[in-house]
Amino acid sequence: MSSVDLAAYLKDRRTLVDEALERVLPAEDVLPATVHRAMRYSVLAGGKRLRPILVIAGAEAVGGAAREVLPAACALELIHTYSLIHDDLPAMDDDDYRRGRLTSHKVFGEAVAILAGDALLTLAFKLVAENAALVRDPRVLRDVVAELADAAGTFGMVGGQVVDIESEGKTITPATLEYIHLHKTAALIRAALRVGALLAGGAPPAVEAIGDAGRDLGLAFQIVDDILDVEGSLEELGKTAGSDARKQKATYPALHGVPASRREAQRLVARVKERLAALGPRATPLGALADYVLERKN
Amino acid sequence: MSSVDLAAYLKDRRTLVDEALERVLPAEDVLPATVHRAMRYSVLAGGKRLRPILVIAGAEAVGGAAREVLPAACALELIHTYSLIHDDLPAMDDDDYRRGRLTSHKVFGEAVAILAGDALLTLAFKLVAENAALVRDPRVLRDVVAELADAAGTFGMVGGQVVDIESEGKTITPATLEYIHLHKTAALIRAALRVGALLAGGAPPAVEAIGDAGRDLGLAFQIVDDILDVEGSLEELGKTAGSDARKQKATYPALHGVPASRREAQRLVARVKERLAALGPRATPLGALADYVLERKN
Repeated sequence: MSSVDLAAYLKDRRTLVDEALERVLPAEDVLPATVHRAMRYSVLAGGKRLRPILVIAGAEAVGGAAREVLPAACALELIHTYSLIHDDLPAMDDDDYRRGRLTSHKVFGEAVAILAGDALLTLAFKLVAENAALVRDPRVLRDVVAELADAAGTFGMVGGQVVDIESEGKTITPATLEYIHLHKTAALIRAALRVGALLAGGAPPAVEAIGDAGRDLGLAFQIVDDILDVEGSLEELGKTAGSDARKQKATYPALHGVPASRREAQRLVARVKERLAALGPRATPLGALADYVLERKN
Repeated sequence: MSSVDLAAYLKDRRTLVDEALERVLPAEDVLPATVHRAMRYSVLAGGKRLRPILVIAGAEAVGGAAREVLPAACALELIHTYSLIHDDLPAMDDDDYRRGRLTSHKVFGEAVAILAGDALLTLAFKLVAENAALVRDPRVLRDVVAELADAAGTFGMVGGQVVDIESEGKTITPATLEYIHLHKTAALIRAALRVGALLAGGAPPAVEAIGDAGRDLGLAFQIVDDILDVEGSLEELGKTAGSDARKQKATYPALHGVPASRREAQRLVARVKERLAALGPRATPLGALADYVLERKN
């Protein structure tokens, strides 16, 4: 897949996802309006839509189609957005900007921001349940709900955030840093791919291979994120570069330096592609997405 | 059912629920330990276990058994507890005590309290998915997840909390107060009963009747709560009486007076029992529970 094809692929899938998100979020004038406005403000703020596109790519890699998994794709974006809203709160990372705009609590106040996050997490599970109507085997829903709950909960994203917060301002080991990255970021990216593959009826070995690729891809994504935070500009990132260092967050470049971090991301993406090789040409878009994760500038 | 029988019924179901909650919550030494400690602190703080017992009673009312619905019963208690933890936060109701103990953020800090709430909501959906393994028809899971998500989200509990927060210190109409009570309290109580009935394979008319009874019961429960807040003692409530008035929260007694509020709760509970009559003797415990809601002192 050439870079031109990938751009078209991403644009097409992003449009599908954006249209679906517009549909699944209650309108701004639906009561209680404040929380619906806050939900839409954060979800429809743009963003790469990486996780929902990975749900679609995971489905496609086992022969499924985007339309079969769109509700679940939206669910992944809602879970991601809820985690950003809560992470940005004063009691957590205390960030004023996200994706180049004021964070939710700066616009709507802390109470509504907390509730908007809660509501997005809740709506995500509703969407996954609705997605079950589109798939052949109703038992798949059980696996998908469990997959998402594990990836979002204390053995996934919440766990990573807890350790991240507890590590701020401390010297941490490479093992702890990997724990944070694997749980805070890679768990949900892995789940996005597995959920797509499961809903599309993927056989267990294919789902496993796609999930393992997702773990590596998620770790590579976070390492690149850390590098961009050191090197990127405000214009490219939509947030202030160097913010990790200011907040005394441990990062890959801080522990290992930029060159070694870049090599590690490259090694991981190479392994993603090895893992996907067995799936044949249907996984080509997913391999191209892995390159994109490595080369992205924001 | 006599009051002696009801006491035994409640004790038996509460023991089942407490044992199940102990099992489904990760142990205190499982990493990341802080958040698991915070989850256990709030969930295992006692409490009436009304919502999980209603899941069981809803199942029993259509011929099901407690053991078939225990994971979902736990899920309802986790959702209830998550909502208490977040409602107590400084940005929301700013409460220092709950069930006679310091609130989560007073013990673990705001960040961990927010994350513990998030994790409990997430774990609730995982438990519901696991419960699907115990029931005959796997398609039921779809309805149950949607039911819970609706009851917990912006058209249920979160919606009620948003309007409650926005109404503080303002003069509100009886219609707004009913909106808050129906959404913040009755939605989840209704869902508890419907989830139990759905998982136990209840026929649609029975599930409807049980759900309508749940709505009335939930509203009665909240009216009694408001009356207890005016009249109860610290010892009975585990929190300071009169706290609603101090926080300028609108309540039934404040708008309608205590005698009219008590009559309304009695009228609602009488209607609960009418709705349950069609279900026959299997719904007797549920009717007795409705009396308990009316007569409780805490």
